[in-house]
Amino acid sequence: MNVIKEWKTLLIPYEQAVEELKVKFKAIRNQYRELNEYSPIEFAMGRVKKISSIIEKAERRSIPMEQLEEQMEDIAGIRIMCQFVDDIYEVVNLIRERSGKDFTVLYEKDYIKNPKDSGYKSYHIIIKYPVQTALGTKEILAELQIRTLAMNFWATIEHSLNYKYKSHIPDGIIERLKNSAIAATRLDEEMMEISREVVNAQLMFEEKSNT
Amino acid sequence: MNVIKEWKTLLIPYEQAVEELKVKFKAIRNQYRELNEYSPIEFAMGRVKKISSIIEKAERRSIPMEQLEEQMEDIAGIRIMCQFVDDIYEVVNLIRERSGKDFTVLYEKDYIKNPKDSGYKSYHIIIKYPVQTALGTKEILAELQIRTLAMNFWATIEHSLNYKYKSHIPDGIIERLKNSAIAATRLDEEMMEISREVVNAQLMFEEKSNT
Amino acid sequence: MNVIKEWKTLLIPYEQAVEELKVKFKAIRNQYRELNEYSPIEFAMGRVKKISSIIEKAERRSIPMEQLEEQMEDIAGIRIMCQFVDDIYEVVNLIRERSGKDFTVLYEKDYIKNPKDSGYKSYHIIIKYPVQTALGTKEILAELQIRTLAMNFWATIEHSLNYKYKSHIPDGIIERLKNSAIAATRLDEEMMEISREVVNAQLMFEEKSNT
Amino acid sequence: MNVIKEWKTLLIPYEQAVEELKVKFKAIRNQYRELNEYSPIEFAMGRVKKISSIIEKAERRSIPMEQLEEQMEDIAGIRIMCQFVDDIYEVVNLIRERSGKDFTVLYEKDYIKNPKDSGYKSYHIIIKYPVQTALGTKEILAELQIRTLAMNFWATIEHSLNYKYKSHIPDGIIERLKNSAIAATRLDEEMMEISREVVNAQLMFEEKSNT
Repeated sequence: MNVIKEWKTLLIPYEQAVEELKVKFKAIRNQYRELNEYSPIEFAMGRVKKISSIIEKAERRSIPMEQLEEQMEDIAGIRIMCQFVDDIYEVVNLIRERSGKDFTVLYEKDYIKNPKDSGYKSYHIIIKYPVQTALGTKEILAELQIRTLAMNFWATIEHSLNYKYKSHIPDGIIERLKNSAIAATRLDEEMMEISREVVNAQLMFEEKSNT
Repeated sequence: MNVIKEWKTLLIPYEQAVEELKVKFKAIRNQYRELNEYSPIEFAMGRVKKISSIIEKAERRSIPMEQLEEQMEDIAGIRIMCQFVDDIYEVVNLIRERSGKDFTVLYEKDYIKNPKDSGYKSYHIIIKYPVQTALGTKEILAELQIRTLAMNFWATIEHSLNYKYKSHIPDGIIERLKNSAIAATRLDEEMMEISREVVNAQLMFEEKSNT
Repeated sequence: MNVIKEWKTLLIPYEQAVEELKVKFKAIRNQYRELNEYSPIEFAMGRVKKISSIIEKAERRSIPMEQLEEQMEDIAGIRIMCQFVDDIYEVVNLIRERSGKDFTVLYEKDYIKNPKDSGYKSYHIIIKYPVQTALGTKEILAELQIRTLAMNFWATIEHSLNYKYKSHIPDGIIERLKNSAIAATRLDEEMMEISREVVNAQLMFEEKSNT
Repeated sequence: MNVIKEWKTLLIPYEQAVEELKVKFKAIRNQYRELNEYSPIEFAMGRVKKISSIIEKAERRSIPMEQLEEQMEDIAGIRIMCQFVDDIYEVVNLIRERSGKDFTVLYEKDYIKNPKDSGYKSYHIIIKYPVQTALGTKEILAELQIRTLAMNFWATIEHSLNYKYKSHIPDGIIERLKNSAIAATRLDEEMMEISREVVNAQLMFEEKSNT
């Protein structure tokens, strides 16, 4: 078996898992809307890590290739976006309640209450997910990242800069990134102030649109 | 709870199941292609039965509304299309092997070896499928229909006519439908004659396209 | 012709136009990426105004139904999201250069340099767009809204509140909305500070991903 | 500019054109359905020719690379599927009527009245289509193939075999292909016999589904 086929064989269950998990989290939002209830999920998206990024991360963390499946938790990644910070914790509860059914929660990291030094904020949950593929049954790890739209905007920018500077961002830019993280948090706080008003408004809106 | 909300609550798990099953069967095809192997599945599609059709069928078969979930097997329907008749039986095997994993096979009906009087041909498998929704866990029934492209063409036409004549198609048209069923079977037989050649050809094609 | 059919006949060209314009603006982004150049468009989406909203707006502005097509400019709406404020003006230039080709620019409103009292910011361009449908040829009006992610977040929230309070938002909430508009602008300013760094970073990223 | 970028620059307008034309032909079908009228288009799909196939065809036909855009008509290809043979000619009329509006018909080839020796049947129309891309304005050629489902089934099989045998299919298989072409034509004829019944039935079906 050549290298390309080996990579394909490795990644097929992850691609399958990402497709299934996207359907599952997008459905939650649609179901709330159909029932005229406020959805804590604004939208969901997913991706399988690029081969080049897997290799790079494996080298950086000294993960041997044959232990990728046990030690790299974000080959399959699902991102769930929320309107308000409070919604994030509601989504976390939804996910916890589902543990033991179609997936199992392994552990959680709350980078909102404990942001990274860089300013990075998000709630991470690592799950174990069983998939059936043309190659048979497999249990894979997946990372769920739950964040507000402002946190996501900031994280996308930071990701680009980390890539550019190979994780050695110059001090001046690190300073600016921290300032923008503060501005993003400030926006989330202001939004939280009017969130209760908005949640009710959006419910009324859904109801009317259905008629 | 009003009637519309009751129907929505009933159908949400079926909609979710159809979305998930579509992803699963489409993935099988993509996985074979990625691995440069011939896929017995040409494509897959799905639908939830319309409310008006559910009511009509319930009346016709005297199914009380509160027993819909146990007695109506095709509220969730998945259609799997194959190039050749032999592929159908390969797909049936794939599905049987998966029973007890992400779904359970309840029973099968082989309308290819035993076509209906009308001329209808297809292989049906009824499965039990567990879904998680915003409303909790649920096990639903789903019908998998596996057929060739020619069988599908014919079945679509017959479905339209049955609808038009409320299942009382005039004799003259019944006769013509039978003739076209014979023509469809003849096409499938001719295609089977060259199928082995084609399967190899398509494998070569996939391989080259990847380079 | 009944009322439902009349509405359908009115809206079909708008639906068609929105589909075509979405394809066109999404394509611009993909083309920049394929050529390893920075795309000023982050993503694009579109919608046709709901019938209930058209009626409501027609009443509010005293537009007679038979003048809808000439006087209501946002029945077809396209929203173009940018990472940075500067990108908005680059997109505006792209659109101006295309005037007279597949569409014609009628006029522009710069609510970024001149925000509305509420705090609303966006750049609007009204275009005339020719469509061919099953019903024949038609020239329709469409509104292009170009904004940053932070402007969009804020505008979505304001829209919900306007809906809830039928455009009579209580003073206390108006105050809070203004505060959050300031926070959104602050985030956009901080992001602009690092935008040049990010643009270069994203270009490098694209280039590597392609190999 | 390297070779990969040259190919990308060549193909971007074709990709754009295929996306736009797919939207346009799919819309026709949806519009008929919305208006409760029978649609002669069953579905539409499109593709840009693979680079390897372009090179191969250019060599086979001695087309110099710098004349690709004028001499190769099927780099952009749209396939329109119909239920019945009569529908094909209705679609042809629709396309002719649109000439001079969003595209221009250059010429037509009726391989249904005059099938190829191999048994191949389809109606081809070559059009000139103007596109706007990030690279500017361009007029490209596109091939529209209009066929029934049975013609398409056969053509897909023949394409695979031609690929396998590099256009030198052994005599025995050529014979079998011809037999299956006859079976496909027979199926289309039988279907035509009941087509008027079906068209009416599908109209009634649409109408009821909308209520």
